[in-house]
Amino acid sequence: MKLFPVIMAGGSGTRFWPLSRKDRPKQFLALAGDTALLRATVDRLPPLARLSTTFVVCGPSHAPAVRKLVPQLPRANVVIEPCARNTAPCVGLAALHVAAREPRGVMLMLPADHHIGKPEAFRAALAAAAAVAEKGSIATIGIRPSRPETGYGYLKVGGRLPAIGKARGPLAPHKVERFVEKPDVVTAARYLAEGNYLWNSGIFAFRADVILDEIRRAMPVLGEQLQVIERSLGTPGHARTLKRIFPDCPSISIDYGVMEKSHRIAVVPADFGWSDVGSFAALPEVQAVDGEGNLTRGAGLVVDGHENVVLGHGKRPLAVVGLDGVVAVDAGDAILVVRRDRAQDVRKAVEELRRRGREDVL
Amino acid sequence: MKLFPVIMAGGSGTRFWPLSRKDRPKQFLALAGDTALLRATVDRLPPLARLSTTFVVCGPSHAPAVRKLVPQLPRANVVIEPCARNTAPCVGLAALHVAAREPRGVMLMLPADHHIGKPEAFRAALAAAAAVAEKGSIATIGIRPSRPETGYGYLKVGGRLPAIGKARGPLAPHKVERFVEKPDVVTAARYLAEGNYLWNSGIFAFRADVILDEIRRAMPVLGEQLQVIERSLGTPGHARTLKRIFPDCPSISIDYGVMEKSHRIAVVPADFGWSDVGSFAALPEVQAVDGEGNLTRGAGLVVDGHENVVLGHGKRPLAVVGLDGVVAVDAGDAILVVRRDRAQDVRKAVEELRRRGREDVL
Repeated sequence: MKLFPVIMAGGSGTRFWPLSRKDRPKQFLALAGDTALLRATVDRLPPLARLSTTFVVCGPSHAPAVRKLVPQLPRANVVIEPCARNTAPCVGLAALHVAAREPRGVMLMLPADHHIGKPEAFRAALAAAAAVAEKGSIATIGIRPSRPETGYGYLKVGGRLPAIGKARGPLAPHKVERFVEKPDVVTAARYLAEGNYLWNSGIFAFRADVILDEIRRAMPVLGEQLQVIERSLGTPGHARTLKRIFPDCPSISIDYGVMEKSHRIAVVPADFGWSDVGSFAALPEVQAVDGEGNLTRGAGLVVDGHENVVLGHGKRPLAVVGLDGVVAVDAGDAILVVRRDRAQDVRKAVEELRRRGREDVL
Repeated sequence: MKLFPVIMAGGSGTRFWPLSRKDRPKQFLALAGDTALLRATVDRLPPLARLSTTFVVCGPSHAPAVRKLVPQLPRANVVIEPCARNTAPCVGLAALHVAAREPRGVMLMLPADHHIGKPEAFRAALAAAAAVAEKGSIATIGIRPSRPETGYGYLKVGGRLPAIGKARGPLAPHKVERFVEKPDVVTAARYLAEGNYLWNSGIFAFRADVILDEIRRAMPVLGEQLQVIERSLGTPGHARTLKRIFPDCPSISIDYGVMEKSHRIAVVPADFGWSDVGSFAALPEVQAVDGEGNLTRGAGLVVDGHENVVLGHGKRPLAVVGLDGVVAVDAGDAILVVRRDRAQDVRKAVEELRRRGREDVL
């Protein structure tokens, strides 16, 4: 089976400011080691899939950086969204490109900014999901929760589906009873205890024709917009058409717009050391910490402190003294200090700097 | 009465790292405004005393910086200690210089790194202390405590002494019953409640002949060493003699070595907005804070936080988010983050950096 990985690299969040910037969002940062998350996402695909059938979807301002980061990727495989419209239009646009090569091609939708600790298990899970998708289902990857996490959506797992191809044994597919929004901590603990809830990884497998069908049914306006774009594909007017139509597409996530309304959803339960690296607070999930629970990089340094994340810039000392649970980040031209359990609030600093006219450091 | 201010600028502490360095200790920093503390100490003396009779005592490596910072100071008035030997030898050496000009000259011993909020009240208190000193007492300045401070030594005030000259009314001198070491917080609260304890400001007034007498009595070895140095004063061999003798002087504070053993101690109670600016935590005593109790400088910035001290470097943003009671300091080539109530522990970061061979930033 020929697989079509589609790496969604359109993100532009602020949760990793000051490391991330408008021109260098999270997926371009080496948050889990020495390799940018996007590049690591590409690199972990072989031998499951080839670069010739791998797509990266990104915004126009990031396309040069994508090409530089993954030079071996065919130029035509960088799909440019004229603007960010959340994941439903992104998936639809990618499906058009895949369908143009193979109408029933199986797509693997992969966020560009996740970390995978066990790439082999990851590829096995994707192969299982692809086998399920090939038969016409929309296959999600559900991660077995290891803690009562409140930062993720959950999938409530229903009955077992017939085993298909590689989707056997522990990777056997199940129905999805429902999608669950990010829970509070009590609910999350119950989910963990009950055992039939999985984290929604945002990783999906489906055939191009199937997802386009589902979009037409659940989001008819987007369906029509995609048809207009489809007719222009491969013609000289494509770029213009895309630029005209795409900004009007509804800015809705594929989960909310399509998945949650579909009856063809299956889930492949998996466990491959997944982290969405959601904020600085999550870095200790994906990088080694010392005996005191401190993560230090560069000339970062902790004295009398625990569970800190201290990212220095080159040789410049960044000393954290007498503090626990703090994130300190020196990005060279801007410095952030934030309580680790409020790492999501980094955006507030970004907003304040924007208010002060400091676009030069955003 | 001709007064001889002696500004003790030999300090080399690490409590203001990374702003302070080996070559730029605290007294050279503008911690309370736009002026270096040492320069502000000089500038607040007139019209009480003249620059021509003002001395600055410092180490050899800091003498050029002193001359640059106070260019109007006569070159001969910069007294160089070959090495730091605490305050007793420093006071003794200064007394020799003053005595050479006027044996019974009244010296005003002034730390170079304190802040004075009310300079006029300060000069009035010094004038009162000088009047007491002229009669042969060792006059200390005791500050009326405003809080149960555990970071200062205290003076237990005894009976009232006869009013002398300017030392009248609220500035009337009292006996010192005893010197008290830094108390714990319960004891400090008791001192505050009892009302007859004052903070030991480290500011003294005495005649040169009186203090040399007292040193000879309480510290006979130092007394003899000073006599050797005295004989060399004004001769070509002075520098060599000083370099030979001074390092052997006992490294003891004037409080411990002389004051606490003397029976000629008086205290002038005063209140002139005094702060010893003991650490970053004390900066809000001497610089304006905003409505949330945050002190920010440069491009420092606090979001959702209180009682922080955030000192940015030039235009480089230093954002503190979701934290209370934290000190964050960007010195350009090194950054510190420390809990405000542990600001004294900055030295531990300095020690760790020394261990790592980072003398370049110390």
